Amino acid sequence: MEALKQKILDEGTAIGKDIVKVDGFLNHQIDARFLERIGREFARRFDGCKIDRILTVEASGIAIAVGTAPFVGYPPVVFAKKAAPNTLKEGFFRAEARSFTKGKVSSLIVSEKYLPAGESVLILDDFLAYGEASLALADLVRKAGSQVAGIGAVIEKGFQGGSEKLRAKGYRVESLAVIRKIENGIITFEEDDPAGEEHAGE
Amino acid sequence: MEALKQKILDEGTAIGKDIVKVDGFLNHQIDARFLERIGREFARRFDGCKIDRILTVEASGIAIAVGTAPFVGYPPVVFAKKAAPNTLKEGFFRAEARSFTKGKVSSLIVSEKYLPAGESVLILDDFLAYGEASLALADLVRKAGSQVAGIGAVIEKGFQGGSEKLRAKGYRVESLAVIRKIENGIITFEEDDPAGEEHAGE
Repeated sequence: MEALKQKILDEGTAIGKDIVKVDGFLNHQIDARFLERIGREFARRFDGCKIDRILTVEASGIAIAVGTAPFVGYPPVVFAKKAAPNTLKEGFFRAEARSFTKGKVSSLIVSEKYLPAGESVLILDDFLAYGEASLALADLVRKAGSQVAGIGAVIEKGFQGGSEKLRAKGYRVESLAVIRKIENGIITFEEDDPAGEEHAGE
Repeated sequence: MEALKQKILDEGTAIGKDIVKVDGFLNHQIDARFLERIGREFARRFDGCKIDRILTVEASGIAIAVGTAPFVGYPPVVFAKKAAPNTLKEGFFRAEARSFTKGKVSSLIVSEKYLPAGESVLILDDFLAYGEASLALADLVRKAGSQVAGIGAVIEKGFQGGSEKLRAKGYRVESLAVIRKIENGIITFEEDDPAGEEHAGE
């Protein structure tokens, strides 16, 4: 998605070799108008997929899931909550997500009520890095007895291997911008598949 | 907002005398279509106010702020992050919010970059109870050198005194549904001002 790449270049900040901060439009301050373009692009990428529900994780996934719902038929949006691994709660599905950056394991929980069986669930998140959060979300869907319609990320750090890991498990992955590398403050993207690119204006 | 009251009665759960759970459409699972009605109603209530920015707090405020932005001219949305009181971070505005229900004080922080001076900022949140979170958000706005355009809550627990506290400080408060009491599992609302009610269908 060229407009997204340009926005990342214009407004994002590269830190070291691993981090790109997009606090200015996605993670802390949110550009609600641009969110609609993100939502429309996810709808285009997953066109033809059955989407009964969107699953994401708090906090920064919420805006993306809510921003996409209107373009895929307003399915229910559910966000997984981050809980301490030992918090005892009943009536929840729970999955563990390892964070490479934070060096710890956290639990993602979703009420069983809001993740029913037999659905086709689209997983959305802001970033795809090592894929651990997406794997945990997919695990929740599987535990609920539903299937993963696909996994969508706004920004993928392609060099961290998350999408390969997810595709090896059979999941369809759509990332709107894939970063190839971050070096000396410069962000380089993978080329989009030209046939897949959105050409219409906003 | 009659449609909201009806939705709370239909889908909410009253617990004890203090708690109403709306996990089914607002706090965990989100009804994105209903969110648009909420956004449109906030726009109507704050019609004529200058809104340069919407400020909310993670996690469940995010959907409401993002859902309202399109109806008030797509201002930037910023969500305060909850931080441990002693986390040292530079370049952030910080305010303390006491939680009566959790019995502890937590810090809300917002990057100085995303709360510039000289603006008129609309504060939105899901619940208004004792008003401590709203006071902390208003404190952040004041620290930034901006002014509070108003404070909007989807659901106010009127019996906990938050709106009186906020109005006594000169803030305009708009709550879309005000709960008068919760008793024996029954939720009773304050009457809306009839002249102020939305009569048009969706």
